[in-house]
Amino acid sequence: MQASAEAWHNPSAPYRDAARVKIRLGAVRARLAEFVGCAPEWVVFTSGATEGANAVLAHWAQALPVGARVAVNPTEHPCVLEPVKKLFGERIVWLPVTPDGVVESEAVKTVLKTEAVAGVITMAVNNETGVLQPWAEIARCCMLAGVEYLCDAAQWLGKLPASGLGGAGWVIGAAHKFGGPKSVGFIKIPVGAESFRAQLGGAQQRGYRGGTEDLSGVAAMVAALAEAEQKKVFQEAERLRWRAQFEQAVRAAVPGVRVIAADAERLWNTVSLLMPHTENHRWVVRLDKLGFQVSTGSACATAKEGPSHVLAAMGFAPDEANRVIRVSSGWATLETDWNALAVALGSLENEFRADNSNVIKI
Amino acid sequence: MQASAEAWHNPSAPYRDAARVKIRLGAVRARLAEFVGCAPEWVVFTSGATEGANAVLAHWAQALPVGARVAVNPTEHPCVLEPVKKLFGERIVWLPVTPDGVVESEAVKTVLKTEAVAGVITMAVNNETGVLQPWAEIARCCMLAGVEYLCDAAQWLGKLPASGLGGAGWVIGAAHKFGGPKSVGFIKIPVGAESFRAQLGGAQQRGYRGGTEDLSGVAAMVAALAEAEQKKVFQEAERLRWRAQFEQAVRAAVPGVRVIAADAERLWNTVSLLMPHTENHRWVVRLDKLGFQVSTGSACATAKEGPSHVLAAMGFAPDEANRVIRVSSGWATLETDWNALAVALGSLENEFRADNSNVIKI
Repeated sequence: MQASAEAWHNPSAPYRDAARVKIRLGAVRARLAEFVGCAPEWVVFTSGATEGANAVLAHWAQALPVGARVAVNPTEHPCVLEPVKKLFGERIVWLPVTPDGVVESEAVKTVLKTEAVAGVITMAVNNETGVLQPWAEIARCCMLAGVEYLCDAAQWLGKLPASGLGGAGWVIGAAHKFGGPKSVGFIKIPVGAESFRAQLGGAQQRGYRGGTEDLSGVAAMVAALAEAEQKKVFQEAERLRWRAQFEQAVRAAVPGVRVIAADAERLWNTVSLLMPHTENHRWVVRLDKLGFQVSTGSACATAKEGPSHVLAAMGFAPDEANRVIRVSSGWATLETDWNALAVALGSLENEFRADNSNVIKI
Repeated sequence: MQASAEAWHNPSAPYRDAARVKIRLGAVRARLAEFVGCAPEWVVFTSGATEGANAVLAHWAQALPVGARVAVNPTEHPCVLEPVKKLFGERIVWLPVTPDGVVESEAVKTVLKTEAVAGVITMAVNNETGVLQPWAEIARCCMLAGVEYLCDAAQWLGKLPASGLGGAGWVIGAAHKFGGPKSVGFIKIPVGAESFRAQLGGAQQRGYRGGTEDLSGVAAMVAALAEAEQKKVFQEAERLRWRAQFEQAVRAAVPGVRVIAADAERLWNTVSLLMPHTENHRWVVRLDKLGFQVSTGSACATAKEGPSHVLAAMGFAPDEANRVIRVSSGWATLETDWNALAVALGSLENEFRADNSNVIKI
């Protein structure tokens, strides 16, 4: 709000107030670069991770050698999968995932040795299951092999330390995933990407993205990231403990429930539950009435037909995928919230089980 | 701020608070559609006019027949010119402009008759000179000829009535041009553009643009437009009178000054002045110190080398273009502001003229 009131001038205009906006914009960029661990000139502000993914993949399609193939994790977000399918089609090598949905770095190494790929795509954290990918190790393999690497860090940023992402090739993030405003995000470009153009137009952002820069938006994004980086990302252990308690309580209250990717490293904020019965929308609707807002999958995928592509890639059958609910928490979620949700799940379980028995009797 | 506090939920999520956000988003879309004069489903929210221009032209490059040519006004904004040059290159037919920078509808008709173009591009108002293009008439010609039409209405919206733009093929706008936030804009798509995709990803906005919708951003945009449409766009006559007074005063105070496109219909907010001597940056710097923020050209073009492409297309020589300053006003600019600027220009004129005489003497 302060930036919006004081520093609304177009940073590319030739008068002094505009020059001051440009300086503030540079300071915001430098601060973000410091958290991520890169040079400020490698930060390109965008309107979000969807723009970021579309722009990076359009660049790859132009800048990689003709006919180049790319290795892709099949559990990526739709904003990565849709453009990569459109632009690379038959030239995609699908990376194998474990039943927990992990792309192991050994699998990437094998693909790099056996298939002539020019780029690798794995997200940092899966948005539906919370499963962590070994992105730092994969980034290193790609660097050693001299191939491009794209890391969608939208779910990671603000929840675990950003440090290290600076070395991970192309990185995309979205502010609203960590408390910043919607319609703001960034791309961290790698060294030597001078020909990258997210949008053609003015010479803003060294030409990487034409269009008037939004100081208030990016300042809010970096303020939100700074708050998380300085106070929150180190509280992981406590959050993991609350989640473990929740999972234990749900297992006790809902016999036959399965925590998706239970044995994999997962981000503290997400639990994906395969319910033993009853379609997931029914759980979501009843939980909503009890005051709990849970999802069935990615909100970006909700409007689409068909079960989750993430669960399909992990080997779940469609009828299983349709029983999966996704619980996401934020820094404001407390231990008592997790406990209350477990209780609610237990009471719905009793109700649904009774309903199901009645149906069978009739 | 209200939308941001109350309705921050992802509108695609499956719980009721999210559904409420979706309803509010639909109401904002419908209100914008009403001002523009189109069906709500033809409004696609974007991150601004630069994204809009890039997306529409990328769509044309894919959707128009192979080898299709497009007719383009050479005074378009860089966000239109750069992608169209990249995507259509030698397949561009440059539209002729009058010395005032106007693309006459007769010229468009001639091109439509003599050249097999599949699309026409003319902005509504030029951003450097304020010159109005006969976009409604051009839109009608294109519709009758069955060719695509793109109208960059970024400078028009909020300053003159939006009504009628709904019938003008593809229209792009940017919120920050009429008092809304930066990083928000829209595209008005034409009938039959179902295959248009600004960004691939989720199924948001009927699939036209994947990515989480930004209710607070678009609500602020439409609130700003509504304020202009309901209170301001009818105050044109008074504003034109203030500008005429200003131009008269500057002509008296600065002998030899020339108002660019003086005889053309121009938007009330812009005056482009060809100064009789002294490079434009010197005027800008001295005016800035006197409290007046004027520009040399488009802020989007400021960081680039070379004189304005707009002035070049109008037949101005580079040394003339380098003496042009652009004065833009807003709804908050008063008659007294215009008068004060004329006085300031007069006093700088005396000073610069004395300096120049001294230089000649030495």
